[in-house]
Amino acid sequence: MTEQNRQIVLASRPAARPSKDNFDLVRTPIPTPGEGQVLLKVRYLSLDPYMRGRMSAAKSYAAAVAIGQVMEGGTVAEVLESRHPDYKPGDVVLSYSGWQSHAVADAKALRKLDPNQAPVTTALGVLGMPGFTAYAGLLTIGRPKAGETVVVAAASGPVGATVGQIARIMGARAVGIAGGPEKCALVRDRFGFDAAIDHRSSTLAEDLRAACPDGIDVYFENVGGRVWDAVFPLLNTFARIPVCGLIAQYNATGPFEGPDRLPILMRDVLTKSLTIRGFIQREFGDQRPAFYRDMAQWIAEGRVRYKEDIVQGLENAPEAFFGLLEGKNFGKLIIEVS
Amino acid sequence: MTEQNRQIVLASRPAARPSKDNFDLVRTPIPTPGEGQVLLKVRYLSLDPYMRGRMSAAKSYAAAVAIGQVMEGGTVAEVLESRHPDYKPGDVVLSYSGWQSHAVADAKALRKLDPNQAPVTTALGVLGMPGFTAYAGLLTIGRPKAGETVVVAAASGPVGATVGQIARIMGARAVGIAGGPEKCALVRDRFGFDAAIDHRSSTLAEDLRAACPDGIDVYFENVGGRVWDAVFPLLNTFARIPVCGLIAQYNATGPFEGPDRLPILMRDVLTKSLTIRGFIQREFGDQRPAFYRDMAQWIAEGRVRYKEDIVQGLENAPEAFFGLLEGKNFGKLIIEVS
Repeated sequence: MTEQNRQIVLASRPAARPSKDNFDLVRTPIPTPGEGQVLLKVRYLSLDPYMRGRMSAAKSYAAAVAIGQVMEGGTVAEVLESRHPDYKPGDVVLSYSGWQSHAVADAKALRKLDPNQAPVTTALGVLGMPGFTAYAGLLTIGRPKAGETVVVAAASGPVGATVGQIARIMGARAVGIAGGPEKCALVRDRFGFDAAIDHRSSTLAEDLRAACPDGIDVYFENVGGRVWDAVFPLLNTFARIPVCGLIAQYNATGPFEGPDRLPILMRDVLTKSLTIRGFIQREFGDQRPAFYRDMAQWIAEGRVRYKEDIVQGLENAPEAFFGLLEGKNFGKLIIEVS
Repeated sequence: MTEQNRQIVLASRPAARPSKDNFDLVRTPIPTPGEGQVLLKVRYLSLDPYMRGRMSAAKSYAAAVAIGQVMEGGTVAEVLESRHPDYKPGDVVLSYSGWQSHAVADAKALRKLDPNQAPVTTALGVLGMPGFTAYAGLLTIGRPKAGETVVVAAASGPVGATVGQIARIMGARAVGIAGGPEKCALVRDRFGFDAAIDHRSSTLAEDLRAACPDGIDVYFENVGGRVWDAVFPLLNTFARIPVCGLIAQYNATGPFEGPDRLPILMRDVLTKSLTIRGFIQREFGDQRPAFYRDMAQWIAEGRVRYKEDIVQGLENAPEAFFGLLEGKNFGKLIIEVS
């Protein structure tokens, strides 16, 4: 009965790159569920790039985490105690419990997982938010056609890997960009991309050009930064650019050094009839049933594969998160909390 | 029989701002139509910002005009001689004869105009390419909903004026940006915009903010430059930005001075789920029948108005064109050739 809730709370906001000082590990009493609620023991916590945005006070599509508040995040948890008829102790659920070991949640905010159908961690990756981001963004905004070329960065990560594999299912050519030979090998050999380019190479622009002899029809933007400069000149007329992340600039603080690239961008938007479209996956929520159906089938058929990078211990979440922002993870980053 | 064809040809390419030296006025023999062709006498020549792009060798959506070649352009012309059964002398047609007094054209590239239905010059403006650019870009990409705010610059010009009036027909609020009090009065009083902002004002950003208390849902981009900086912070989540022109930067030569605005743009594309979409009207060619039907009706009902700025004499086309690039025209700029 002396067990306590371990929580990682936001202690301060980072000016640029986040550090350990921005987090506190605190212990609080295990909360008690009210009517219609359940008490959860968190088993897995998902770490994702969007969390960097939640640490900042800058206006975004979601409110910032308040100072002293538990860091947000998707979780796979086990029901310890239930005050809702649909749930019983032992059930495994997808919840949004954040960086902590225990949580109370409204039953209606949960989705029950079947451990016999798929490993429960996939609910945080290929069968969860990252997989759905890839699915909705690529199919709704990118709309790859057979024979077209789709380029995606962070191609060994859960979004990028899924984008490339869906592109190939649609008959398109998939070119992935990743950091280092090991990740590039994963992208090519395990995820089946047509080509993988190392963004650390000094010849990134030339390498990408060689891998895209017919130009680029869809660039799924999830990193920004230097990769953009290599992609931009290769975009074809009517190219589509779904923008779901800009991890390379999350830690940056403006104003940004010149030259100003905006006039060049807009010139090409005009002369090449480009489409640039930012999105957050929840905008496409009505596609979730189709996603669960298609993705489960593709995984079962071996047409979509995934890779997880599981780190033990909630206390290691900050360090793992810093690594994520620098591309040190190798696959979908998950914290095994208990 | 001594009549000759007067032609304005491209003599050289401008480094930045075009000048008289870039054009030559030459006289050549009147051409002779072949089988299936007609000989045309040009009555009206349309001058449009896109022609600046045709003067440059830079890759764009259309090939550059070659040195020594007649400048391109839409025209209203009269048939002098016909070798096609559908046309007879005296017919008035829409053609793409360029900056010259006479031309031979394939009959199948022409559209016959009925001078009793609408003034023939409207085929170069509100019922022609500029009107269709406004119609297709606003309705297909901008998709204004009732109660939303639509902003357009060059609002006294043929595209901008039409954008604002269609926006109002769709139940949206229309805010126009134009240069100087006289143009702003036109935008408000004749074209019926809800507000008109003078882009020459030192308080442009504040004025625009005051005119858009609910932010901006659609920004129809046809100018670029300083107006963009005023519009950008006011864009709402899910705002749509059809891009059909960037007249403010057509004469510019890169690299452009910093700070680099691209990271800020991309950040907002992401956090506000913005859509930026370049287009050329001919992409939407299948909408032309609907356009002719809707626009003719709106004009007949007095719901869409237009203004023309007609300059006499082909020899004055270069000077008038330079003025167009600086916003000196007052309505749709047309050269009365004969």
